Amino acid sequence: MKVLVIGANGQVGHQLVEKLKDKGHQPVAMVRKKEQQKVFKDKGIDTVLGDLEKDFSHAFEGVESVVFAAGSGGDTGADKTVVIDQEGAIETVDNAKDAGIKHFVMLSSMGADQPKESDEKMKFYLYAKHRADEYLKSSGLDYTILRPGMLKNEAGTSKVRLFEGGTEMGEVPREDVANVLAHIVDAAKPENKTYYVLEGDTPVEDTLK
Amino acid sequence: MKVLVIGANGQVGHQLVEKLKDKGHQPVAMVRKKEQQKVFKDKGIDTVLGDLEKDFSHAFEGVESVVFAAGSGGDTGADKTVVIDQEGAIETVDNAKDAGIKHFVMLSSMGADQPKESDEKMKFYLYAKHRADEYLKSSGLDYTILRPGMLKNEAGTSKVRLFEGGTEMGEVPREDVANVLAHIVDAAKPENKTYYVLEGDTPVEDTLK
Repeated sequence: MKVLVIGANGQVGHQLVEKLKDKGHQPVAMVRKKEQQKVFKDKGIDTVLGDLEKDFSHAFEGVESVVFAAGSGGDTGADKTVVIDQEGAIETVDNAKDAGIKHFVMLSSMGADQPKESDEKMKFYLYAKHRADEYLKSSGLDYTILRPGMLKNEAGTSKVRLFEGGTEMGEVPREDVANVLAHIVDAAKPENKTYYVLEGDTPVEDTLK
Repeated sequence: MKVLVIGANGQVGHQLVEKLKDKGHQPVAMVRKKEQQKVFKDKGIDTVLGDLEKDFSHAFEGVESVVFAAGSGGDTGADKTVVIDQEGAIETVDNAKDAGIKHFVMLSSMGADQPKESDEKMKFYLYAKHRADEYLKSSGLDYTILRPGMLKNEAGTSKVRLFEGGTEMGEVPREDVANVLAHIVDAAKPENKTYYVLEGDTPVEDTLK
């Protein structure tokens, strides 16, 4: 299955395309710059040049599933959060609709359900994620939204705690977020659900059953 | 007619409540702090305390029309643009729906129709305004959206150029934006339209005919 990964150059996105390839899919890493292509090509992973701030509708040709895993990151300002995390996601939804994508997988964030209740520093970010998630939900596309806890860089365990609601907070390794996203793309029937994920004891392969 | 003005303490909002009162309406100035009430009370204008970052649904009681004229301004960061200009407006729409408001008047901005085409510095702001406008448009509420050109502080002339589309740019005094908003509240049947306004030669009273 041809899977477009938006934000493939990010930490989660990079691991995700590798895991999708390991599962026998054909991931396509959308990257912004030519020089970002080599590292994927060297691993036999297809790439497509696309910039969320320009027209990137060409990237959806022949694609069945899309994962939006892009984010402007903490080094840029809230202005880029609006342009990339919120509006880049919203335009990805629009492009996915136009292209007849069968499953839209959104990498969101824990807290994006209740941005108003969040602490001041995170509020604008969680509102941006919330707004993108809401846009996807009302788009008519089949989707899965994944909202991980605090991302950490240590190696994944391939074990997590996946749940549909609640107010727990916690951490989860980026690699396990990539594991879950790959599992969602691979195994999940899109049931238009929102999942939360933290580190835990359940093998990723046993979730979503 | 009881008209709730969100952002009454802003430059446009402040002039708007006075002009609404002059037209015989009952404006209610929503302000965030107690000390902001006096200047309105001294002019015989009703106030209600309400904070866009908290629950302000109480402000809509008995209200027929709402004008959203709030903005975080240029002195705060893009994070506050998300929280106030975008999400404050969106929550105002939600509250207006719950309260059965008959006419929602949104003070938007020229350029909010095409944020992607705007220059880098304005992009996040115009996306935030765009997103709020789109939310209003799809809310089911009866609305009028007003998108002024560059706001300037000089005295109004009560003459403007009001139009429904096009790509002209230009300036308009804040006072004339307040004049047009008051006229929209007073005279316009809500036809779910978006208007652009620049300084011009047509008396405000002769627009919207």
